[in-house]
Amino acid sequence: MARYSFLDDYSEGAHPSVLNALLATNLTQQSPYGDDEYSNQAKEYLREKTGVPTSSIHLVAGGTLANIISIGNCLRPHEAVIAAETGHIVVRETGAIEAIGHKLITVTPSEGKLTVEIIEKALDNNAHFPHMAKPRLVYISNATELGTTYSKTELSNISSFCKKRGLLLFLDGARLGAALASANNDLRLTDIAELTDIFWIGGTKVGTLLGEAIVISNQSLATDFSFHVKQRGALLAKGRVIGVQFSELFRSNLFFDLALHANQMAAKLSLGISEMGYKLAAPTETNQVFAILPNALIARLEKEFKFYIWEKVTSDQAVIRLVTSWATDQKQVEAFLDRVLR
Amino acid sequence: MARYSFLDDYSEGAHPSVLNALLATNLTQQSPYGDDEYSNQAKEYLREKTGVPTSSIHLVAGGTLANIISIGNCLRPHEAVIAAETGHIVVRETGAIEAIGHKLITVTPSEGKLTVEIIEKALDNNAHFPHMAKPRLVYISNATELGTTYSKTELSNISSFCKKRGLLLFLDGARLGAALASANNDLRLTDIAELTDIFWIGGTKVGTLLGEAIVISNQSLATDFSFHVKQRGALLAKGRVIGVQFSELFRSNLFFDLALHANQMAAKLSLGISEMGYKLAAPTETNQVFAILPNALIARLEKEFKFYIWEKVTSDQAVIRLVTSWATDQKQVEAFLDRVLR
Amino acid sequence: MARYSFLDDYSEGAHPSVLNALLATNLTQQSPYGDDEYSNQAKEYLREKTGVPTSSIHLVAGGTLANIISIGNCLRPHEAVIAAETGHIVVRETGAIEAIGHKLITVTPSEGKLTVEIIEKALDNNAHFPHMAKPRLVYISNATELGTTYSKTELSNISSFCKKRGLLLFLDGARLGAALASANNDLRLTDIAELTDIFWIGGTKVGTLLGEAIVISNQSLATDFSFHVKQRGALLAKGRVIGVQFSELFRSNLFFDLALHANQMAAKLSLGISEMGYKLAAPTETNQVFAILPNALIARLEKEFKFYIWEKVTSDQAVIRLVTSWATDQKQVEAFLDRVLR
Amino acid sequence: MARYSFLDDYSEGAHPSVLNALLATNLTQQSPYGDDEYSNQAKEYLREKTGVPTSSIHLVAGGTLANIISIGNCLRPHEAVIAAETGHIVVRETGAIEAIGHKLITVTPSEGKLTVEIIEKALDNNAHFPHMAKPRLVYISNATELGTTYSKTELSNISSFCKKRGLLLFLDGARLGAALASANNDLRLTDIAELTDIFWIGGTKVGTLLGEAIVISNQSLATDFSFHVKQRGALLAKGRVIGVQFSELFRSNLFFDLALHANQMAAKLSLGISEMGYKLAAPTETNQVFAILPNALIARLEKEFKFYIWEKVTSDQAVIRLVTSWATDQKQVEAFLDRVLR
Repeated sequence: MARYSFLDDYSEGAHPSVLNALLATNLTQQSPYGDDEYSNQAKEYLREKTGVPTSSIHLVAGGTLANIISIGNCLRPHEAVIAAETGHIVVRETGAIEAIGHKLITVTPSEGKLTVEIIEKALDNNAHFPHMAKPRLVYISNATELGTTYSKTELSNISSFCKKRGLLLFLDGARLGAALASANNDLRLTDIAELTDIFWIGGTKVGTLLGEAIVISNQSLATDFSFHVKQRGALLAKGRVIGVQFSELFRSNLFFDLALHANQMAAKLSLGISEMGYKLAAPTETNQVFAILPNALIARLEKEFKFYIWEKVTSDQAVIRLVTSWATDQKQVEAFLDRVLR
Repeated sequence: MARYSFLDDYSEGAHPSVLNALLATNLTQQSPYGDDEYSNQAKEYLREKTGVPTSSIHLVAGGTLANIISIGNCLRPHEAVIAAETGHIVVRETGAIEAIGHKLITVTPSEGKLTVEIIEKALDNNAHFPHMAKPRLVYISNATELGTTYSKTELSNISSFCKKRGLLLFLDGARLGAALASANNDLRLTDIAELTDIFWIGGTKVGTLLGEAIVISNQSLATDFSFHVKQRGALLAKGRVIGVQFSELFRSNLFFDLALHANQMAAKLSLGISEMGYKLAAPTETNQVFAILPNALIARLEKEFKFYIWEKVTSDQAVIRLVTSWATDQKQVEAFLDRVLR
Repeated sequence: MARYSFLDDYSEGAHPSVLNALLATNLTQQSPYGDDEYSNQAKEYLREKTGVPTSSIHLVAGGTLANIISIGNCLRPHEAVIAAETGHIVVRETGAIEAIGHKLITVTPSEGKLTVEIIEKALDNNAHFPHMAKPRLVYISNATELGTTYSKTELSNISSFCKKRGLLLFLDGARLGAALASANNDLRLTDIAELTDIFWIGGTKVGTLLGEAIVISNQSLATDFSFHVKQRGALLAKGRVIGVQFSELFRSNLFFDLALHANQMAAKLSLGISEMGYKLAAPTETNQVFAILPNALIARLEKEFKFYIWEKVTSDQAVIRLVTSWATDQKQVEAFLDRVLR
Repeated sequence: MARYSFLDDYSEGAHPSVLNALLATNLTQQSPYGDDEYSNQAKEYLREKTGVPTSSIHLVAGGTLANIISIGNCLRPHEAVIAAETGHIVVRETGAIEAIGHKLITVTPSEGKLTVEIIEKALDNNAHFPHMAKPRLVYISNATELGTTYSKTELSNISSFCKKRGLLLFLDGARLGAALASANNDLRLTDIAELTDIFWIGGTKVGTLLGEAIVISNQSLATDFSFHVKQRGALLAKGRVIGVQFSELFRSNLFFDLALHANQMAAKLSLGISEMGYKLAAPTETNQVFAILPNALIARLEKEFKFYIWEKVTSDQAVIRLVTSWATDQKQVEAFLDRVLR
């Protein structure tokens, strides 16, 4: 029998409701290139839930495309991005942003997050003009690549600073669902829309087969955006494929419910492991658990479960990473804890 | 009631078998980024059907991505593409190839097709080195943007010439299904693989929700290809989404059957219209019909059907374009012909 | 003894006055990167002579750099350039503009020149948005690559049309000197500045060792221009090198005098050849002469002079091209005519 | 009277011999685009002095162009550069390398220099393929941006490691003259050519008006290099301008003599300041002196000399930077020391 996987949050296909929506709408004839009724409906739901009735919204297939298109749309060739050195665009997208011509100014984050101080220092260190690229856009992720989240105060501070210094604020929301469903979170989708110039909401990790929604609340950035979507290869002939799925996610509370389930499964794992006396390498804010376990136990767990051994701690202990998702089976969580116990 | 659409071949979702395959496999846990069992299975089917057991195959979401990645992978910055001035990369992809740095040398095709003579003339006119970009890759489409197809002799001639002159041959197969299912066709998938260096097979227009398969038969072009897939934003976390669909298309003869249905519906429309005494603006080789009809008739047809008025012929006649697909309902074809008659 | 060359207008170094200015200023200590007193002085002269006291001016080493920087500064990634298919950026710069990401929409010119009709047709043919790149900048050269020149009426018409349709007008002035010194010319430097958004004045072909002056009269395009100069490698540490030379060219009437000499030498050749009964393949507007001569005569001339055989006319006649410059020796012109005669 | 400047090593024009060579050759007629007799002669001298008779050599106007062209020629789009975070391409070229599509992987150097350990760690940290760009080229400068130099052992170690790991080694020689003339130096030009794949020799800072010579000793990198020179705007019509100057520099020992003079003037300043009891902030290896002086003295010196105040040390002391060059007047060095004394 296959071992149950806690490797990542994209091991399964789509949430059944999402797949059923694809099934139910499959044979209607629709306009191509995102002008179908489902995409339009999805955009209406998103405008409502983000609280910006005038925002431009574009649905694309994946996160790297969302980043390429958003950043490429916003910058002139000499303008640079400020990003954490752990940022997804910095270390997990094969130089995709540089490939469209822009410099990344990397900074050391604080628990995966940028702060006003960090950004200000980057500005100070990149001011020898015109010999240095001009910092123009701040890239942040929420949740971050480390699973941490921004508070409303933290995001507001960054937002005000950016406005004051002529910087655009762009938020990568590959795991925005997990962030908003975090027990620590005090941000709503309307705050995200208000405090950033442009951001995207990840669907791939919250129950769709694929798809992310780029939301442009700063109207001055919306002009000709669709040219960039097309030029970078992201304008699907059957735009309905993403439209149907996002429409299903945001018609009701499904997006938030699925993200909450993932976080709850992580919390359950985290609590169970702690209660058995094992330490965590980091607090469990979203859907990732970093636990420190003895090697012998790890070896035993690997016989029934898949997960990453994150790093060695001592000669007989290591950190393992467990990732949960909308699809995580509570019985498997219990089985895992049961195996830890015995 | 909605008018039935003959506007394009991507108005519906996926063929039911394809969608059912997504449903049936939905909750299995799979490795991400195209290393799932369905993608691997699809690649095996494709290697078999293209007759190149060693070929590298990559599944991506759309045609523009397939073109960007394939061309970007093959060329150095100073190398240029020879393409018909009607080519998709020339006039329908928002400068996507130029956006990754390459010049398109455009030539006037013969019925949408390139010939050895045309390519040779392009070489002659672009030889003032190093002041001119170096022609290095020939881009062709089959079926072409005009719905015409290459014969085996035509493709073989181009292929030999390219080998002789150090040019790479790349075939855009957005409508390769329609071409191979054409009554005129004498090319098999194995010929395409043998005669080109790299080509792609379109799924979007033959029954998938999305997806195209890039096949690299020239092994020297396969090195590090996956970096390009990732860098251009085309490496889906849930690669299974395309893998499942292509696996279903090529497990059996489905791909060819669907393409044949589309062509047959077009042939039926074409024949019916001709038999009623109307002329065609072009022979019907694949799934597009160009018919010359009186304006009054066109106005009447538009009340029940959607199609493009392609161009004015005289003050009271115009060419209309009818596109059929795997999903075209034979009853609607008959209803259309019935309305032409009355 | 070396054969005298009529091959091009950059066979010699700099005009002696220009070289002497380099000598005279050589050992003063100056600020780097174009902020030296000579560059500033040159810019003052140019602002005066172009009649735009507020224009931004940048001195760069060569024409391709001037084109890359100017176009790259003006366009967003999805915006395209309309250019004659004979344009220098189209056929003599190795795809330099595509290499920075922009599509060239090429059109067939009329005697090397664009017209309102030609530009309007390009707009009509490139309007299927967002599937087509957006035409945004019109590129023209004066003199053109064929040696022809724009009249004031012609340039005014294009300028008005561009303003009306939201297009930027960019003029490549590699041979602007020759154009302004043409007997046909009714444009002044102030007209060029007024009618275009951005243009450059070539020094390389009018007596400098190297160097072209980019003049931005449309202030909205001047922001951050120097970043582009630096990013594309054109910000010389010793900016004085070009500053001194342009200062010398524009301190007095030298630029215009040198261009006039080149044209006069061409006129003399042209007239002499005509008077001996030979035909011209094109009227001599600037510093290029296209003469139709018998092959036997051509062979005789080649023993003492260098020039290009441009194209075959009949089995015993061909067009030759003679180019003159500020450095052309009148005695050699006379010797050439003498050899034609005998 | 103007204050004497120790601000940088490009305040003056060209060394008189270099300028005289331009004068002496000015009116000969030459082939354009670097195929003149002076450029060919310069390349011969350089092939001799670098000990690689088959190397390809290209003369370009400036350092950023040399870096853009060299790196762009060597890499495919997904390949990245490893560079010190203080590297010129990282912090002083406005994102020029990213602008042509390549990621810079930045590392913390040791005294401005890379080591095998540093490079190896960068490889380890950038191995998550294909999600990370592929490290392919190592960029170093000699002298470094901090004025330090590589020993033969240091460079040999890096070179061997690069060969072993499939990395190309590229050396930016903007101040290669200063490095080779350093008292610490044990590298010869032939070593540089042997140990790197491609490097360039700076002329701008050693007595030319402008110009750098790119030397490609690894023949596999030389194919089509001139296309890149042209495409990036660096192919001067009058290539002779740089050819004459490099020919003059390398005909005799002039290049090395000029570099030595600059270093000697720095040594004299350094020694004089030390002997008066002031400390240096860094040892003086090449032509830069970093001295720690009291603020009152600095204020007094600034009345007669120009230099940069590099950083504050205490409330009444600061580091100043003095840069010398081939043009530095020994009398001014003595006057400076005299003013320090009194």
